[in-house]
Amino acid sequence: MDIPAYMAHSAARINAAMPGCVRALKGAHPRLGKAMAYSLSAGGKRIRPALMFAAYEVFGRKAGDILPAACAVEMVHTYSLIHDDLPCMDDAGLRRGRATCHKVYGEAGAVLAGDALLTDAFTILLCSGYPARVRNNDLLKAAGILAARAGARGMVSGQAADLDAEGFLDRQNGRVIARRKVEALRLLAYIHLHKTADLISAAVEMGAVLAGAGARDVAALAAFGRDIGLCFQMADDILDAAGDGKKLGKNSSDARNRKLTYATLLGVAEAGRRGAALMRRALANLEKAGGRPAAKARLTALAGYIYGTDR
Amino acid sequence: MDIPAYMAHSAARINAAMPGCVRALKGAHPRLGKAMAYSLSAGGKRIRPALMFAAYEVFGRKAGDILPAACAVEMVHTYSLIHDDLPCMDDAGLRRGRATCHKVYGEAGAVLAGDALLTDAFTILLCSGYPARVRNNDLLKAAGILAARAGARGMVSGQAADLDAEGFLDRQNGRVIARRKVEALRLLAYIHLHKTADLISAAVEMGAVLAGAGARDVAALAAFGRDIGLCFQMADDILDAAGDGKKLGKNSSDARNRKLTYATLLGVAEAGRRGAALMRRALANLEKAGGRPAAKARLTALAGYIYGTDR
Repeated sequence: MDIPAYMAHSAARINAAMPGCVRALKGAHPRLGKAMAYSLSAGGKRIRPALMFAAYEVFGRKAGDILPAACAVEMVHTYSLIHDDLPCMDDAGLRRGRATCHKVYGEAGAVLAGDALLTDAFTILLCSGYPARVRNNDLLKAAGILAARAGARGMVSGQAADLDAEGFLDRQNGRVIARRKVEALRLLAYIHLHKTADLISAAVEMGAVLAGAGARDVAALAAFGRDIGLCFQMADDILDAAGDGKKLGKNSSDARNRKLTYATLLGVAEAGRRGAALMRRALANLEKAGGRPAAKARLTALAGYIYGTDR
Repeated sequence: MDIPAYMAHSAARINAAMPGCVRALKGAHPRLGKAMAYSLSAGGKRIRPALMFAAYEVFGRKAGDILPAACAVEMVHTYSLIHDDLPCMDDAGLRRGRATCHKVYGEAGAVLAGDALLTDAFTILLCSGYPARVRNNDLLKAAGILAARAGARGMVSGQAADLDAEGFLDRQNGRVIARRKVEALRLLAYIHLHKTADLISAAVEMGAVLAGAGARDVAALAAFGRDIGLCFQMADDILDAAGDGKKLGKNSSDARNRKLTYATLLGVAEAGRRGAALMRRALANLEKAGGRPAAKARLTALAGYIYGTDR
């Protein structure tokens, strides 16, 4: 199971399709279009599209059918990074090794580029052509899943809670006061679930829905996606604790801003144990789903790659 | 034709439904939910929902069918106001007679409230229940229209161009240098079309699409909506030129920020003549649509109300 090759192939599909997504928005204000393209082309592993493709393939379909839907999820992810990096949020200057959108296009330009990427994720998702085997009713459902997981019940609340989290830290030494540790862990679980896992789960669930999977299979894959998302964030915390900003292609902002992470709260070893437990739960959920065993094995391997591999 | 009563009835429907839209997003971060509710409850005439309802009724339907769709358009409108008011954009402190969202919830809070309102406009639109006569295929089309008109080909580009427009003014005396007047008028037409008319047109077009209207009727109503939107912005320019910030419930920001408007470029009289020409074109387009004459007459009266009445 050559997962790096699968990831690379899937990322290449997305990278090839992205300029077309921006071109499809012809008539856009030129500078706005440039800011959108700048952030879309910044790269990244394109993990969400890969998971969506792999989930779709579990039900015997070919990933090429749902390329616009995979682009849509990546557009939503890109918007969230642009807005998270804003001076009024995390005030980040570097992302994926490049200057952040607002550093290049100004604060207003970055707010608008994010707004447009979010909105046009739905344009690309809803207005693109799909083969007839992708049914309109399933497309409607998939769009509803994307909106619900990215909105106030999901990703946006994760970011709102993340901003709150700074108050939990004793700024003097970067440690959480002991009596507030339970509260801090609860807050952190909320942040990881919504800020990261919700959109990853949406990508996996959308893949299953677009393949016409039944409700039970869809639920199992959504739960799998949620846990993979939580694992992914756990791995990010652990890497960030190592302070290796270069490897992540960003400033080591968690440490600098003294943010709550599992690594700072529980230590790297315990964070690793919790990550492994989440991975077991993810795979147990995947087991509950039907579909093709070989394609499910690929999803398992993808999950391991995302959690364990040096990113 | 009691248009003020129709407007009031339609606004009351929306105002009654809005808290439910926010409640439907249970699990949202509490402060985020409050910021969303704060801006949604700030009032306004709810012109877009009224136009959507009236367009839907042209085809013999009852407005109550599409309440979630009307709320969705108003949520998109509300998000756009929150982001336009941000310090990095228009830096407005007052909106509809109240402190703007970022004055109450901070800059990050306002960015996130806008993001969530935009995203969850699609949640409410796509995940709400509708009577069976509202077909899923039409709902899919309506959601695509909303996304396309609100995105980079539409409203967001209008705001991006609006930010550019300040460069056209000689800051010394607030007048456009004569040789750049043609260019300024072209820019202004672009701003009005995208910043204002696109979403109003989307509201009207969505009403027709959700009623299952044919392509020709939908096109006629979309063109009508676009022109009404242009008229509406023209009227706003003229009112703003009168400098009556209190009446608009906001700071007289166009004058203060020396923004491009038809009133400042052409004078109030010529702006009024152009508005009247647009209104004639709007009504000619409405004439091309089929549907119930009485309901079309209501749409005509609504258009006049929106353009002519003291807002």
